[in-house]
Amino acid sequence: MTDNGAANGSDKNPAARRGSNFFSEDDAIGNLIRMLSRLPGLGRRSATRLALRLLTDREGGLEPLVRALSEASESVRLCGECGNLDVRDPCGICLDNERDTGLLCVVEGVDDLWALERSGVFHGRYHVLGGTLSALDGRDPGSLSVDGLRRRARAEVREVILALSATVEGQTTAHYVADLLRDVCEVTVLGQGLPVGGSPNYLDDGTLFAAFRSRSLLSGGAGL
Amino acid sequence: MTDNGAANGSDKNPAARRGSNFFSEDDAIGNLIRMLSRLPGLGRRSATRLALRLLTDREGGLEPLVRALSEASESVRLCGECGNLDVRDPCGICLDNERDTGLLCVVEGVDDLWALERSGVFHGRYHVLGGTLSALDGRDPGSLSVDGLRRRARAEVREVILALSATVEGQTTAHYVADLLRDVCEVTVLGQGLPVGGSPNYLDDGTLFAAFRSRSLLSGGAGL
Repeated sequence: MTDNGAANGSDKNPAARRGSNFFSEDDAIGNLIRMLSRLPGLGRRSATRLALRLLTDREGGLEPLVRALSEASESVRLCGECGNLDVRDPCGICLDNERDTGLLCVVEGVDDLWALERSGVFHGRYHVLGGTLSALDGRDPGSLSVDGLRRRARAEVREVILALSATVEGQTTAHYVADLLRDVCEVTVLGQGLPVGGSPNYLDDGTLFAAFRSRSLLSGGAGL
Repeated sequence: MTDNGAANGSDKNPAARRGSNFFSEDDAIGNLIRMLSRLPGLGRRSATRLALRLLTDREGGLEPLVRALSEASESVRLCGECGNLDVRDPCGICLDNERDTGLLCVVEGVDDLWALERSGVFHGRYHVLGGTLSALDGRDPGSLSVDGLRRRARAEVREVILALSATVEGQTTAHYVADLLRDVCEVTVLGQGLPVGGSPNYLDDGTLFAAFRSRSLLSGGAGL
């Protein structure tokens, strides 16, 4: 159950001294485990488990994975228009004629774009900004694809939707972009408040504050 | 927060209809995600995250991983002696002269061998059985490396330690192996009881029963 086990420390046993790294780093297995454990969400334990699974199922596991990785490495590129990753440039979304070209959704990264695509809530086009502004981390407007955004917004866009993180950096970036596009088109931001299924009981103060501020009329009121 | 999001089902939006599988399976990205999501411990979400990380960091992430996988695929083989996976055959453990050749630890799989090696508790050699007996799943003695075990046990082994799972299949297999080696050498099994750090409060009845059965004298008693 414990990671260290009950090492009895025999001097005859090199593995006991090396502890959990009993594979040397220049060994092909040790190197594979090291490479796998660098991946997001994988610790050394799960990397070891993964390596073992791959090595015991070469035809069904390891070799198809190597082929898929190599193929993706060769064929996937950045879309020069929006910054998405796809096998085509411009990407499938930019080429999709069924999308509303008047709507442009600005996201920080490709992961946000994919999450929005997965949900199917948006049927316009995207623009990947490549991050957020951050004075602390030295990320200035030059590190973001704002020139491309300005050019695209000027084209035939009637509304730019900022789908940025609800963090200080995300909001700073939103204000910067809104200012940049002030005379170009309408700029909107995503609503803030309770997530679907969320209870006020479990929400942080910031979200509660945003939810109160953006409350909407359900019935009655002076307008009726 | 939810996996499905709030699809508004616009007919103009193909992604909304395709739901979370907006990458086609024959697309290089979709294929990579599919291959990654087959790996143990990775769902579709973490596989997507992983694919994105790999594709955005080719020199630092994807390419070294492909090299490590290819190298491991080429160089790692099964040890003909014990069944371990290593770049050498016989493996480093079988070749290690500092180990006690009189002790042979029988494990179900390479993962158990690696776990024991990591802990450093054992300084003999191993024998990978390749599974357990199971009448229900049609695994008979022919599917296990029992012939090799018998041959090795006859050589210079004084004790075979059965480090098999504490399951019905594991225990059935233990009895089968013990019977097989009855006239060859001593056969022992791992102790059962409370894991280190474990409390009786949280243990299952089977473990509690085993712990009571294998209790040992701490002080006093008729023997003193």
